[in-house]
Amino acid sequence: MKNQKNYMVDTSQSVPFFNHADECIGTGRMGLALQKQYFEQLKLVQDEIGFRYIRGHGLFSDDMAIYQEYTNENGQQHAEYNFTYLDFVMDSYLELGLRPFLELGFMPKKMASGTQTIFYWEGNVTPPKTYQAWGALVQATLRHLMERYGADEVVCWPIEVWNEPNLAGFWQNADMAEYFRLFEESFYAVKAVDPRFRVGGPSICGVDDERWMRAFLDFCLEKELKIDFITRHHYVSEQPAVSGHYSYVKLQSLDTCLDSVKSTRAIVDSYDAFCDMQIHITEFNTSYVANAVVHDTNYNAAYVAYLLSNMGDINQSYSYWTFGDVFEEIGVPYTPFHGGFGLVANGCIPKPTFWSFQFFKQLEGTCVHRSDDSVIVKGEGDVYRGVCWNLSGGDLSLSFALNLKQGEYCLLAKTVDEACCNPLKLWHDMGEPSHLSKQERTLLRQAAQPMITSDSAMNGDIHIDLSPNALVYFELKKVMRQSDRGYDYRRATAQR
Amino acid sequence: MKNQKNYMVDTSQSVPFFNHADECIGTGRMGLALQKQYFEQLKLVQDEIGFRYIRGHGLFSDDMAIYQEYTNENGQQHAEYNFTYLDFVMDSYLELGLRPFLELGFMPKKMASGTQTIFYWEGNVTPPKTYQAWGALVQATLRHLMERYGADEVVCWPIEVWNEPNLAGFWQNADMAEYFRLFEESFYAVKAVDPRFRVGGPSICGVDDERWMRAFLDFCLEKELKIDFITRHHYVSEQPAVSGHYSYVKLQSLDTCLDSVKSTRAIVDSYDAFCDMQIHITEFNTSYVANAVVHDTNYNAAYVAYLLSNMGDINQSYSYWTFGDVFEEIGVPYTPFHGGFGLVANGCIPKPTFWSFQFFKQLEGTCVHRSDDSVIVKGEGDVYRGVCWNLSGGDLSLSFALNLKQGEYCLLAKTVDEACCNPLKLWHDMGEPSHLSKQERTLLRQAAQPMITSDSAMNGDIHIDLSPNALVYFELKKVMRQSDRGYDYRRATAQR
Amino acid sequence: MKNQKNYMVDTSQSVPFFNHADECIGTGRMGLALQKQYFEQLKLVQDEIGFRYIRGHGLFSDDMAIYQEYTNENGQQHAEYNFTYLDFVMDSYLELGLRPFLELGFMPKKMASGTQTIFYWEGNVTPPKTYQAWGALVQATLRHLMERYGADEVVCWPIEVWNEPNLAGFWQNADMAEYFRLFEESFYAVKAVDPRFRVGGPSICGVDDERWMRAFLDFCLEKELKIDFITRHHYVSEQPAVSGHYSYVKLQSLDTCLDSVKSTRAIVDSYDAFCDMQIHITEFNTSYVANAVVHDTNYNAAYVAYLLSNMGDINQSYSYWTFGDVFEEIGVPYTPFHGGFGLVANGCIPKPTFWSFQFFKQLEGTCVHRSDDSVIVKGEGDVYRGVCWNLSGGDLSLSFALNLKQGEYCLLAKTVDEACCNPLKLWHDMGEPSHLSKQERTLLRQAAQPMITSDSAMNGDIHIDLSPNALVYFELKKVMRQSDRGYDYRRATAQR
Amino acid sequence: MKNQKNYMVDTSQSVPFFNHADECIGTGRMGLALQKQYFEQLKLVQDEIGFRYIRGHGLFSDDMAIYQEYTNENGQQHAEYNFTYLDFVMDSYLELGLRPFLELGFMPKKMASGTQTIFYWEGNVTPPKTYQAWGALVQATLRHLMERYGADEVVCWPIEVWNEPNLAGFWQNADMAEYFRLFEESFYAVKAVDPRFRVGGPSICGVDDERWMRAFLDFCLEKELKIDFITRHHYVSEQPAVSGHYSYVKLQSLDTCLDSVKSTRAIVDSYDAFCDMQIHITEFNTSYVANAVVHDTNYNAAYVAYLLSNMGDINQSYSYWTFGDVFEEIGVPYTPFHGGFGLVANGCIPKPTFWSFQFFKQLEGTCVHRSDDSVIVKGEGDVYRGVCWNLSGGDLSLSFALNLKQGEYCLLAKTVDEACCNPLKLWHDMGEPSHLSKQERTLLRQAAQPMITSDSAMNGDIHIDLSPNALVYFELKKVMRQSDRGYDYRRATAQR
Repeated sequence: MKNQKNYMVDTSQSVPFFNHADECIGTGRMGLALQKQYFEQLKLVQDEIGFRYIRGHGLFSDDMAIYQEYTNENGQQHAEYNFTYLDFVMDSYLELGLRPFLELGFMPKKMASGTQTIFYWEGNVTPPKTYQAWGALVQATLRHLMERYGADEVVCWPIEVWNEPNLAGFWQNADMAEYFRLFEESFYAVKAVDPRFRVGGPSICGVDDERWMRAFLDFCLEKELKIDFITRHHYVSEQPAVSGHYSYVKLQSLDTCLDSVKSTRAIVDSYDAFCDMQIHITEFNTSYVANAVVHDTNYNAAYVAYLLSNMGDINQSYSYWTFGDVFEEIGVPYTPFHGGFGLVANGCIPKPTFWSFQFFKQLEGTCVHRSDDSVIVKGEGDVYRGVCWNLSGGDLSLSFALNLKQGEYCLLAKTVDEACCNPLKLWHDMGEPSHLSKQERTLLRQAAQPMITSDSAMNGDIHIDLSPNALVYFELKKVMRQSDRGYDYRRATAQR
Repeated sequence: MKNQKNYMVDTSQSVPFFNHADECIGTGRMGLALQKQYFEQLKLVQDEIGFRYIRGHGLFSDDMAIYQEYTNENGQQHAEYNFTYLDFVMDSYLELGLRPFLELGFMPKKMASGTQTIFYWEGNVTPPKTYQAWGALVQATLRHLMERYGADEVVCWPIEVWNEPNLAGFWQNADMAEYFRLFEESFYAVKAVDPRFRVGGPSICGVDDERWMRAFLDFCLEKELKIDFITRHHYVSEQPAVSGHYSYVKLQSLDTCLDSVKSTRAIVDSYDAFCDMQIHITEFNTSYVANAVVHDTNYNAAYVAYLLSNMGDINQSYSYWTFGDVFEEIGVPYTPFHGGFGLVANGCIPKPTFWSFQFFKQLEGTCVHRSDDSVIVKGEGDVYRGVCWNLSGGDLSLSFALNLKQGEYCLLAKTVDEACCNPLKLWHDMGEPSHLSKQERTLLRQAAQPMITSDSAMNGDIHIDLSPNALVYFELKKVMRQSDRGYDYRRATAQR
Repeated sequence: MKNQKNYMVDTSQSVPFFNHADECIGTGRMGLALQKQYFEQLKLVQDEIGFRYIRGHGLFSDDMAIYQEYTNENGQQHAEYNFTYLDFVMDSYLELGLRPFLELGFMPKKMASGTQTIFYWEGNVTPPKTYQAWGALVQATLRHLMERYGADEVVCWPIEVWNEPNLAGFWQNADMAEYFRLFEESFYAVKAVDPRFRVGGPSICGVDDERWMRAFLDFCLEKELKIDFITRHHYVSEQPAVSGHYSYVKLQSLDTCLDSVKSTRAIVDSYDAFCDMQIHITEFNTSYVANAVVHDTNYNAAYVAYLLSNMGDINQSYSYWTFGDVFEEIGVPYTPFHGGFGLVANGCIPKPTFWSFQFFKQLEGTCVHRSDDSVIVKGEGDVYRGVCWNLSGGDLSLSFALNLKQGEYCLLAKTVDEACCNPLKLWHDMGEPSHLSKQERTLLRQAAQPMITSDSAMNGDIHIDLSPNALVYFELKKVMRQSDRGYDYRRATAQR
Repeated sequence: MKNQKNYMVDTSQSVPFFNHADECIGTGRMGLALQKQYFEQLKLVQDEIGFRYIRGHGLFSDDMAIYQEYTNENGQQHAEYNFTYLDFVMDSYLELGLRPFLELGFMPKKMASGTQTIFYWEGNVTPPKTYQAWGALVQATLRHLMERYGADEVVCWPIEVWNEPNLAGFWQNADMAEYFRLFEESFYAVKAVDPRFRVGGPSICGVDDERWMRAFLDFCLEKELKIDFITRHHYVSEQPAVSGHYSYVKLQSLDTCLDSVKSTRAIVDSYDAFCDMQIHITEFNTSYVANAVVHDTNYNAAYVAYLLSNMGDINQSYSYWTFGDVFEEIGVPYTPFHGGFGLVANGCIPKPTFWSFQFFKQLEGTCVHRSDDSVIVKGEGDVYRGVCWNLSGGDLSLSFALNLKQGEYCLLAKTVDEACCNPLKLWHDMGEPSHLSKQERTLLRQAAQPMITSDSAMNGDIHIDLSPNALVYFELKKVMRQSDRGYDYRRATAQR
């Protein structure tokens, strides 16, 4: 099966396209940011892609060691705060050009009203014993950050209250009223520190989400909470089938995969008070399980490209869950390709989806073409940059007629497909080793780079062939040829 | 045109193959070793390939500043030696894992009997005013090196006397008798410092070479000079055609391109006293001009692979002229792809021929197959590593039946061809820019990497397709598959 | 108070001195080795000092995630092992030139018979549910390591069974019989993997230690366990006084501070079967608490120098507890100078005691002088290297008459004292900031370097002045002066 | 001899002080900027000090290879320009945060009207054969730079015409009329490219300088050349005495050492047209010879500190000649401490004078004290930073009463003196080795760091003791002490 599509592109017309691919990225719990491998993976991501914000769980969890108590000489109990690890984490984020998108949670064990935890790493998901203590913790933390990094800087860090309270696993009993209380208390605690802080919620995922969203907005209205933005999550997979350490999932059809974010947009816009308010997708990915093998495939890369071309229409940001595979929610992975959420596999190996973001990051300027399989943007100096992907199931040929001025153009292409940028396959062919040697790691990294090709395009038309699940970045530039005295490429390469 | 060749490989039999690809590498004049770009290019070469020795001109040329004179208070003139730059150069060679293959030359201006120079950088090519001064210079230099680096180390550095004295450009009048005197004086000066030093010559190239070689051997016999090795150079191109800054050359046919080294071997072996003596090719390349555009092509890489598969039969080493393009013999290049000798283009961009060496470097073990288009070696742990190349003019398919035990094998391939690892073409398509921006440099480096692919080969047979001028490295390994509990690659990649 | 001591040193006589300062170093629990700061501190230690082995707790604790269980489709429970983190840790140790001195412990929660834990990080200290499971864990771990790093390498890693079982905090009820069982089971499990492994114990500290040591040796005799070495710990402080987050301790007098190691030596030697057996002090420091402010002082450095000059007489190694301050036994520290055990404070700031080890590391060769305040060694090329320290309470002047041949000598000195290499004081003067800015960190690192001075010593005699708690390294070398033509230092520096 | 000075400092009053210490730095000829050691030394200087501009000779000299000629097929000769090396040099300057202060010179051999050269490296100092060719070269160079780095950037690079034309060594016959012609031609050539370029001269040194300066200004007036700034050089030594490779010089007294720059200021200001015009000292140092051993001493550092405290009064910049010792005007140095001009000795060893600049670089803010031995500046956050130096010949004690608010202050001091930061002495004591081993280099670098000490200053008064030729940086900051719960420094350090 081979599909051919021919697009006429009118480069004088702009087409809607909102590219927030680099706005925010997800991370495993904050305590993992102390790790060397975490830093190395995040550095690779920032060097090659460069996100602006980072968001994850566990700011107040016990491994961050912030909340402490002691008994003074009179036997009275006091709170004290330890910011040693917090500083280390924030220092490295800022060093890497990232700002935190703060998530308030989970509950320090000593402040928790209950013992319920979530994950291998046991995040406590119960309400605080007292909201007074919780508010004091939030405020002490923000004040410390402002003292260290400057108030003007820190008020640019958005604040989200808790994570997925609509799931009983993440918030005891999925108790809606209790969450609203937490939200309100947190909201006022933050604004009392500095009213410039932006605060949002309800950080729900796709379970009973419409009811939750409406209730949350009603609550804010009723309480006159002037929230600054709305948040939710977005995953596009069916129920996973589990086998041993792994999950196998089917993704939703492209037709329906954006329904829930559209529905949220509609709900929010149906309120006068919230119409057009920013909606941040503070987590998204194809599958929502941390061992879904699909995450490591070229198919995932192409699917995510499709999402990246569309999600900006209705969301201010959409934070891929997650940048890397230093992640412990369901335990420590047994192999480098274990279906983790990350753009980067352990061993610092970029997965195909890494390139979806790296490619979209280049798409700055005026969009001149957008379709289900491609997007093209005209940038500074009349350079055309595009990304295309192939979810058709068969081979796909794309042609774009740009009707540019006659002349010499250079068409550069970077291809990520199952043949030329597929570390998963190489690892499989190697025998699926659990523990990579240094040589194997180096080889896998080399095999995880896009193939770069170029062509001379005399009239500026673009032709791209995509094998199944391929993802291609291309760039079309007018060439100012100034061959050096006596240089003749044709003659140089004719000598065989 | 498509050629198919099927080879039956008997893996229990060994086939002659002498791989000295990594023994020695050439360099621009020693004074250039002070430069930052020189070091960066050499570091890349050593990190990725790793040669053992390095040889080039200009040890005693004025920019190394070794030989100095002063007049003392009594009006008498004295020699003094300045080893500041020499130390710097040797320090960096050793830091990069290289030992020098010392070439004694050219003549310091103050010691020279004449004014004739060669090259843009003006190396003086006349005999010394006095051989006493020359011998003192040679000895002071060796003694200084021994003091700094240890005698046991420095006596491992081979010593060659002068460069291409059979050309009047390199040695005034191509005066044979004078060269023999220089050789004899140098020989005794060196051996007086430490008889363990190995000394050789006559470092001739292919002009009137048979006569020179016989005369040199006769001279040594007559004078009872117990030389330690023989040296000559080897280039395989016809006369170049010049246009502006560039030269266009045709290479010799494969049939005849090794004739001159074979003839030298025969001459040497015809003397009882020198039979089987080591012959070092202290320079080789396709073309002998520094602006031959062929050097930058994939064709050159394939041709050099052919040479590397054969030259070890008769030579102890063959030093590719040169590792990089920091080189000033005909002036400073105007563009990164100017046909320089280097394995690496300016901007630290590996040329296709870089990979010929990188691939041959892997060929350690017992050779089980060698033909005009391929060589295969069986290494430790029964891993088969091979290199193949396509000089057939058309497409070429190679099959190797190894008759291994039934089982699962992984066939890894690294391909360098005109489509996937051809920085020259990309640079041409970009418009042949003289001055690369940082982004362009990075892109060219990325485009200069082999494409890595893999396959599962159930019975150990190998199939490789090569486009014209392609060069492919491959590796066949038995796979010990230990899939983790629940992992099923087929299922993982079936989810589309 | 000023003391003057004059030593006559006979450089032709050798004096007993056994320098194992670089043999082994302690570390916080193994799981912390995943952290970036841990690696940076350890890298500094290895770059500047270079230990050979590293020992710490927590190999089998839950954050290393090695021991796992699962239920198969038939409902049966199985063990499985996850070596992902173990590999990461061992890779970094080996990368830094370190081998692990393995300590078997603590108990994985799922394998534990009880719930008692120790430390902030909750190491389980109860016996295994079954010794069969424990043995299987030990063996699987060793076999995995041998597969990854090679059997010949891994059998060089000594193995110690558990930690301080004579304390009820570290081993439930300090149950001696149960420990002996653990020891025996572990011993046989290890030896069954490879009899070349060296296994030792009982890893006790100074509480009821004589009884434990004798009982352990009796047990080994009775059971005919051919142990390979003996281990114990050694701390020299009195009971600490606690205030807030900190402990204040008095150290033992120099007269008595080695009594307990001597007593252990005597006990061991009193057994025919164990006489002269190697005794490894697998932990030592001044104070045994992780918040003893003395650890950060110059006094500690001088005291440790005294210990390093003596402990080699009776112990094969003595492992300073610990290399750095990434350490969580009593929680996360609030400030960089919190009295942690480390040679390096958080922020990668070397403490004075860092230099005690760095200085002793240089003492290779034949000892020619050893006293209570100094040690001098004659090394290759007749270079004399020494360390001296001042625990006298007042100023101290040391003179060493070496009676060398008349001539010019260079005396180099590196001084660490309260005036010139005292980051604690600078930090105090800065106001004791909890959270260092980058600038403050850099300044503290610069202030933590020894002062380097030199002198011309015409007859080879050595004079060193030490302020209280000073530590000085010195080096005396014969000078081969070869002033360059026209250079006159005296004249050069007379021009004012 | 011991001097004591007590200064009352009124911190509410500002005192004139113009600190341009970091404005510009000198360099050896531009071709040396290709060298690895050059880059490393310059990187050290930029990392630690951070200058804004860099100026040196040789832009158009032959080793930069810019000016080339060729004969076309019709036998006509043409100019062509090679910017390969120029780009490399400019790329590295910009990478290090530096902009060039361009000096137009010297003459390409092929364009020169004569053969006179200067220096070991043979810079041609004769006028061009035709001024048309010279103008074309200047314009092609500027246009190339603008294309590569952007016009807005490049017009910020000041342009000076030639170097020291008042010396017959630097400009054939010191021919004033010919220089004025060169200036005028260059001026118009530059302004024709972009009138925003700033052009100045006459770049004279202190020989017959008053006559030259007046004549130059008269010429500009007469020709109505609207020059943008004035340049001259400034050295403060008497005639050197030479011995072998070295020169010994006496420096001028402090009273007179600024006379010539004052006189230039007066001359310039005496013209209405030039009154208050910027004067740039495009070279300054103590001695003007490249082998003056004084350059390596602590005395030089103190003397330069005095100059830095004064020269800003009348000059917009003063460019220390030079940043490092990769420099070949009188040949290649024989030893690391050979009296070179550099702030950094070969081997990347900072000399004492390095710290004069590093210390003055910190002096940002409002000056509150300036005298012959010290300067103090009040910076952001009411931090007081000062530098003091001791040229008194004996010991010197300085006290500054600042009358600050009572409270706790931290006084930080960095001391560079003959005892604690004097690599020259250590090198001398080591025997003055010509060729440093890696260990010796490391040791010398360590010994070349200031000693850092601190004190608690309860009332903000400052006391500094300076040994002869000492240079001290100090910083006084209010301390916000927040001792952690239970921490008591006094108790911590009392435990001996």
